[in-house]
Amino acid sequence: MAAIKVHGSPLSTAVQRVVACLYEKGVDFQFVPVNMAAGEHKSDNFLALNPFGQVPAFEDGDLKLFESRAITHYVAHEYADKGTQLLIPGSNKDAAVLQLWTEVEAHQFNSPASVLAWELFYKPIFGKVTDAAAVEENEGKLGKVLDVYESRLSKSKYLAADYFTLADLYHLPNLQCLLGTSAKTVVESRPHVSAWVKEITARPAWSKVLAMQKQ
Amino acid sequence: MAAIKVHGSPLSTAVQRVVACLYEKGVDFQFVPVNMAAGEHKSDNFLALNPFGQVPAFEDGDLKLFESRAITHYVAHEYADKGTQLLIPGSNKDAAVLQLWTEVEAHQFNSPASVLAWELFYKPIFGKVTDAAAVEENEGKLGKVLDVYESRLSKSKYLAADYFTLADLYHLPNLQCLLGTSAKTVVESRPHVSAWVKEITARPAWSKVLAMQKQ
Ligand SMILES: N[C@@H](CCC(=O)N[C@@H](CS)C(=O)NCC(=O)O)C(=O)O
Ligand SMILES: N[C@@H](CCC(=O)N[C@@H](CS)C(=O)NCC(=O)O)C(=O)O
Repeated sequence: MAAIKVHGSPLSTAVQRVVACLYEKGVDFQFVPVNMAAGEHKSDNFLALNPFGQVPAFEDGDLKLFESRAITHYVAHEYADKGTQLLIPGSNKDAAVLQLWTEVEAHQFNSPASVLAWELFYKPIFGKVTDAAAVEENEGKLGKVLDVYESRLSKSKYLAADYFTLADLYHLPNLQCLLGTSAKTVVESRPHVSAWVKEITARPAWSKVLAMQKQ
Repeated sequence: MAAIKVHGSPLSTAVQRVVACLYEKGVDFQFVPVNMAAGEHKSDNFLALNPFGQVPAFEDGDLKLFESRAITHYVAHEYADKGTQLLIPGSNKDAAVLQLWTEVEAHQFNSPASVLAWELFYKPIFGKVTDAAAVEENEGKLGKVLDVYESRLSKSKYLAADYFTLADLYHLPNLQCLLGTSAKTVVESRPHVSAWVKEITARPAWSKVLAMQKQ
């Protein structure tokens, strides 16, 4: 049995972030489905794994973790010699550039992108009504963030380096949702951003995540 | 002249995060004031340092960075042998616990805490009207987050370890704002959280940040 367990639902963007990382690294893991419709993520058993009652939760032997980006950070370091190199090895100054772009994802991109994913992608699935004002506001915010990305990606093939890193990977789940909605124009109207999104969503590891969702 | 420059305003929570870290490490730096009232953070000169047009921006010799948590992460690693040990040295599993609690700050605490800081602390300073519904909603959200902290801090003196780390430091600026508002009851009604907040806001490095604000 695999030492690594990922508890979650394949529909969750945060779970997808972790699974994409494990596929990139080629590290074996066991996927433990959590029935969110039945509220299993608020059960005592699950709260012992993640006190915030959110998926994913993660185990590697004795180590228990939650927060998708903390998990992927650990996986990238612990399994540094396997699969895709997702870090920038070298000096602290080199590594700082990766840290910068992961912080940009967390504090600039994630908020508008996840509001749009919720309003345009998930709400229709759950039969809820999209809030048009929230969509407009967050398309505006996301556009401003992607203007900065457009300039960055005209000088660098990927966000943090000339190769794919965790900084790019963190964007995949929300970007994939947006591509299935009217908000895709915010992405596709910016040529370097659009090329980058095409490139990273075509990665074999990401295709495996999408296949898992369809099961 | 110091090799490190921090561009910003002492009133900014994100700038305070960086300055607190530099004081903890005892690393010399030059503070370059940015006149935000005059819109200097949207000037071409400043946008070359931070394309998002936000403070802080940071330089260490040739390295230019922005995003307060990327800056502090770099400072803690580059100046690891100076001042307060803000990291958890050791195995990847040990370091993962620090990463976990910095992600919790970013993705659970920061959003409600910075909305409350804006509504209750900054808006009155700028003569703007507080949105009571936003306050109520975010006090509720913050309370749930601090319930998890209360449980964690009943078992661990600080969030990530039994000593002060970056994970605690990241909370200081928003916590300090809240202590000056009605939202302080959300903090003070939880005994372990309250003791932790008293302890970390009393650190000499943090007192220096507060003194800088008063100048
Ligand atoms: N910041 C967390 C977010 C986790 C999260 O929001 N998970 C969602 C699904 S994508 C969830 O479990 N929602 C249920 C809930 O919050 O009750 C992470 O990156 O792991
Ligand atoms: N995530 C950024 C946030 C920076 C930020 O929001 N700075 C504010 C002051 S605390 C600012 O410059 N606001 C002006 C603006 O956004 O135009 C960081 O941590 O450095």
